[in-house]
Amino acid sequence: MSTQRVHVVLVGTTHPGNIGAAARAMKTMGLERLRLVRPTGFPSAEVTARAAGAGDVLAGARQYDSLAAAIADCGLVLATSARERSIPWPEYAPREAAARALSAAAAGTEVALVFGREQSGLSNEELAVCHGMIRIPANPEFSSLNLAAAVQVLAYELRLAADTTDMHVGEADRTRLATAAELEQFYAHLERCLVDIGFMRPDQPRRLLLRLRRLFNRAGMDENEYNILRGVLKAAQEAALKGRD
Amino acid sequence: MSTQRVHVVLVGTTHPGNIGAAARAMKTMGLERLRLVRPTGFPSAEVTARAAGAGDVLAGARQYDSLAAAIADCGLVLATSARERSIPWPEYAPREAAARALSAAAAGTEVALVFGREQSGLSNEELAVCHGMIRIPANPEFSSLNLAAAVQVLAYELRLAADTTDMHVGEADRTRLATAAELEQFYAHLERCLVDIGFMRPDQPRRLLLRLRRLFNRAGMDENEYNILRGVLKAAQEAALKGRD
Repeated sequence: MSTQRVHVVLVGTTHPGNIGAAARAMKTMGLERLRLVRPTGFPSAEVTARAAGAGDVLAGARQYDSLAAAIADCGLVLATSARERSIPWPEYAPREAAARALSAAAAGTEVALVFGREQSGLSNEELAVCHGMIRIPANPEFSSLNLAAAVQVLAYELRLAADTTDMHVGEADRTRLATAAELEQFYAHLERCLVDIGFMRPDQPRRLLLRLRRLFNRAGMDENEYNILRGVLKAAQEAALKGRD
Repeated sequence: MSTQRVHVVLVGTTHPGNIGAAARAMKTMGLERLRLVRPTGFPSAEVTARAAGAGDVLAGARQYDSLAAAIADCGLVLATSARERSIPWPEYAPREAAARALSAAAAGTEVALVFGREQSGLSNEELAVCHGMIRIPANPEFSSLNLAAAVQVLAYELRLAADTTDMHVGEADRTRLATAAELEQFYAHLERCLVDIGFMRPDQPRRLLLRLRRLFNRAGMDENEYNILRGVLKAAQEAALKGRD
């Protein structure tokens, strides 16, 4: 099942009951992979009580110190967030996000669905490792879904999508997407390269890099393209350094 | 908005927190009309806490002694239930149910979405006043959605549907469906008529009536058809009584 490659990542959850309710929501729709970034009150009796029969999802949950660590092996990272951002990330409706997630998963890519803190969502630093945003349609005057309710909606759309995607997308049809860890190497390389070629100064504001990051994240780079681009950066650096001689 | 004619009906809810969470789920998707049949622990601090900012939905909630009373003014009554039944009611996926609900609401029909007790669902007597079942796709090995999570999924589909239905269905395009109260009058009339015409005896098992009820419920009778059928029953009765002279 492609859904085995879909990971629900809860960042900084403050109400333990929400972790349990999210685990239950996942399991009802056949999702099993839960990742927790610095959760509050986990594990605990409250988490287990709200999980009802989804204790196995909790037992298999993995904990991380940062979102970057939690999604390092993922090639597609989509986040839900109600907060508006000055730089608009590519935005998907839940149905569209579910289709993208499953077609990536079917091609061998690990996929992360990221849910921010109940009150404050995700930080800009955390958003920077994401490839797109999921916006759940909601009442503009009261758009704050409970965390587990948001997980339920996404998990529901994934289940609907899974019923068709697994039939239509062959495992070998596509190339694996670059993982988040590879992309981070790429962005670091890109920054060094941009400095090396004199496009930016090392002390320059990082807004430019954020925009480039958004561009490449939106593109959904596969591993072949990743290798090509790394090669391009290397060549540019070498050419620039040669020119200084 | 057509969603003003959509009522969420919670039957015999035993965990007060679920009422609050359901109210919040409703409001995030723009639903406001909540009806409660013999709730446990309502109102209470726990209900209000879980409703977060949806206190107005709770304040407007109406209480009833029976499901029949709660849906008396409704012309379309769809219920979610995980329990299997010996008589299969017409079954809809959430998306299909949302489309039907909104197109009925747009034509002036009050619509009820009924959610049964957390543990035991709806009784057969309660199911008998419903016109169809909604089955939320789920993991066959763990299909028990939390009550508020089920409300969230349905409310979400209604919101998606509302964004298009209100544009496409004119208020005057269709005739109002018969209300549940009218249908009950029809079924009572039908039973008297069937006895009067000698089709069934008054002491006969009621399974036959249940099957007829299912047939007419599935049909979704509008008010014109209701008036016609009442006229037919009346004529049949009068003819039968005349024949005895």
